Amino acid sequence: MKFKIGVCQMMTTEDKLSNICTAQRFIEEAVKRGAQIVVLPEMFNCPYDSDLFQGYAERQHDSITLKMLKEEAIKHKVHIIGGSIPEIDAGKIYNTSFIINSSGEIIAKHRKMHLFDVQVEDGISFMESKTLSSGDNVTVIDTKFARIGVCICFDIRFPELCRLMIEQGAQIIIVPASFNMTTGPMHWETLFRARAIDNQVYMIGSAPATNREASYTSYGNSIVVDPWGKILARLDSNEGLIIQELNLEVVREVREQLPLIKARRLDIYN
Amino acid sequence: MKFKIGVCQMMTTEDKLSNICTAQRFIEEAVKRGAQIVVLPEMFNCPYDSDLFQGYAERQHDSITLKMLKEEAIKHKVHIIGGSIPEIDAGKIYNTSFIINSSGEIIAKHRKMHLFDVQVEDGISFMESKTLSSGDNVTVIDTKFARIGVCICFDIRFPELCRLMIEQGAQIIIVPASFNMTTGPMHWETLFRARAIDNQVYMIGSAPATNREASYTSYGNSIVVDPWGKILARLDSNEGLIIQELNLEVVREVREQLPLIKARRLDIYN
Repeated sequence: MKFKIGVCQMMTTEDKLSNICTAQRFIEEAVKRGAQIVVLPEMFNCPYDSDLFQGYAERQHDSITLKMLKEEAIKHKVHIIGGSIPEIDAGKIYNTSFIINSSGEIIAKHRKMHLFDVQVEDGISFMESKTLSSGDNVTVIDTKFARIGVCICFDIRFPELCRLMIEQGAQIIIVPASFNMTTGPMHWETLFRARAIDNQVYMIGSAPATNREASYTSYGNSIVVDPWGKILARLDSNEGLIIQELNLEVVREVREQLPLIKARRLDIYN
Repeated sequence: MKFKIGVCQMMTTEDKLSNICTAQRFIEEAVKRGAQIVVLPEMFNCPYDSDLFQGYAERQHDSITLKMLKEEAIKHKVHIIGGSIPEIDAGKIYNTSFIINSSGEIIAKHRKMHLFDVQVEDGISFMESKTLSSGDNVTVIDTKFARIGVCICFDIRFPELCRLMIEQGAQIIIVPASFNMTTGPMHWETLFRARAIDNQVYMIGSAPATNREASYTSYGNSIVVDPWGKILARLDSNEGLIIQELNLEVVREVREQLPLIKARRLDIYN
């Protein structure tokens, strides 16, 4: 099974409606260039700023952001991995990725499971847990293309989560994410490549473009890595669009030739 | 706590006695240059060849290789992570790393836990399980310098094992290893860096130098990575010796600034 994925590295600003329009424009462009699954970045409708999440948060049932995504999905018969947006539910705010099929239905949502609390000396400082609540579910969805795992940004740092996803059959793991100018250069590429190598899956990172005027500076560098750990596509810090063909046959091949998953010593780990 | 580690990238040949002498020479040189812990490569006393392990295998109680290591440890008051050798015990052969303290006592041994069975198209083919048995124990030892985890080569591919080691307090993970000319360029650096980043430990890979006349061609590239994922030292394919100062304060700092280990969602994983 071969198909094309579009990874939208859009710039986000403080203007929510403008962000929604930008996302829409990227989806249209990705579709025009052949994408059958379109991926948006983390927090694509708002700045990445703990103090702002509440003001930008939307409820699932009347979200204007989701309305746009559903309409685009239906219009173009395309699957959309909706990056993430701040979602409010029963008074709590989550960093949530909505996944929409080509009929415009929400087939899953992933709420970021590991919150980003960090205080690097002379580097990044961020306390997501001040305002966000964490999700409790591993997200792997069936599509006509592949079984796809979705997690968000900091979630990728925990090898346990990718393992749980491959237990559920994930062949592709998509990670809307916004690393920063400290952790990006140090860790971004290595984490995507290592998760691909260990789990023998395609790894896809979808980041906002770098906005130097924002309080949090996204690293950008959206990336597609194959199950051997090879980088197939990678952007720099600017806005851009990756259109990349994925081939599930490669997942099968690497797992047959280098049988890591069945070589695990589950008898020891458990 | 700061101390110096010596990583010996020696060439192995078919001549076992010559290999033992080479290892001895490397240990002496490492000590002379200030190493307090000396690390040898995987299968340092024999060629890396499944068909040969039996012929080179030694018993723990009368091993001439261990005799040399113990004598060196006592003579120089140095800890030795004895790479690995083929060990025979009750009719089974193991790929075993003996760990010797500065009094010449064997304080632990790690038997390779994941056996290397691989068949890459147009690349490497190897079936370790044809002749070797696997160990069943996670190896983390206390020394006066640090708590040190030891595993062997293919073991590094399984993120579960490093997690078990940090559960037991490992601050440094040492991996005698012999990747090859297929998996080395593709995966070696990324795996060492990712395990360091995920587990916030020093990762040390100790490989044999490349011997182009051998049936199995070692990649070399012995490496020391700090807990941020930064490469502190790395060799090429030739014989060579790394002398590198490690500083446990860095382990403490990275775990405090980027608290990954305590951010794990053990409630979900289990």
